[in-house]
Amino acid sequence: MEPRKRLIVDMDGVLADVYQQFINFEKRELGNTILLEDLNGVDEVKAFPNGEKHVRQKDFFRTAPIISGAQETLKQLHKKYDVFIVSAAMEFPNSLQEKYYWLEEHFPFISWKQIVLCGYKTVVQGAIMIDDHFKNLDYFEGRTLLFTQPHNSSTHEHSHERVNNWEEIKRLLL
Amino acid sequence: MEPRKRLIVDMDGVLADVYQQFINFEKRELGNTILLEDLNGVDEVKAFPNGEKHVRQKDFFRTAPIISGAQETLKQLHKKYDVFIVSAAMEFPNSLQEKYYWLEEHFPFISWKQIVLCGYKTVVQGAIMIDDHFKNLDYFEGRTLLFTQPHNSSTHEHSHERVNNWEEIKRLLL
Repeated sequence: MEPRKRLIVDMDGVLADVYQQFINFEKRELGNTILLEDLNGVDEVKAFPNGEKHVRQKDFFRTAPIISGAQETLKQLHKKYDVFIVSAAMEFPNSLQEKYYWLEEHFPFISWKQIVLCGYKTVVQGAIMIDDHFKNLDYFEGRTLLFTQPHNSSTHEHSHERVNNWEEIKRLLL
Repeated sequence: MEPRKRLIVDMDGVLADVYQQFINFEKRELGNTILLEDLNGVDEVKAFPNGEKHVRQKDFFRTAPIISGAQETLKQLHKKYDVFIVSAAMEFPNSLQEKYYWLEEHFPFISWKQIVLCGYKTVVQGAIMIDDHFKNLDYFEGRTLLFTQPHNSSTHEHSHERVNNWEEIKRLLL
């Protein structure tokens, strides 16, 4: 039997819908209405000028919505691949526990052994990486899947395979 | 100029003196006196039957003593190597923030970008790993340094280089 391939899966923007959460916090905390359709091709920092404040607020990560299809497809991928969830969380120490408990609640089949909270992702290795940021995919040695998010949507991508949703990931990897 | 080699450094048992902290908690919490010299060759779980309880107590990791020489030598290594601190912390979610703040206090030259809190360490790659556990070193592809701790002290080591203290690490790597 061939060894299972290691699959590295990002959290924010791939499992957790941080765009929707930023929009929710802008509305709730500051009364601002931000429309998702206005954010295509806009850098995240420009899209959410108060983002730095929101990510440090209690429950920002703990109550983030789940990206559609992630639960069902990741559960299937987990049976076939050696899945690791890798999140660049270290910049926001308050997010560490929140991210752990969020995964425990929504992805209970993922064990603590499979979770990596880090700074730079250059230190992780695997066969396949799914991420929405070039800064992570560009340094990865294996196969790279770029998950579409508004900040990367207008880039004509050549060096990574683009996936627009979890349905497409399912078709590619299962 | 050659690229800097990536050096993976463990926390518990290499930077943080968890043996002394277990002894401190046993005394403080339960009134038990445990002598370090009685623990040579004894598995950690057997050495500290209440260890599982202590590691879940508040401040166990936050107030851990520092292993002698670690601060000075790691600061020098940090100038020469691409240092990552990698700790298998995920089993104890309460430890995540404590470990971050412990590093920030005692190793302020280490940035959040260089910290990895994970489950299994098989997912990290680098040129050199310093660790006190075979379960981590055995799966690492680069050069492996076994840091002496009572639980591994009576093993005749052949597949990894043994280092007994930070002075020896300094001589080997600087």
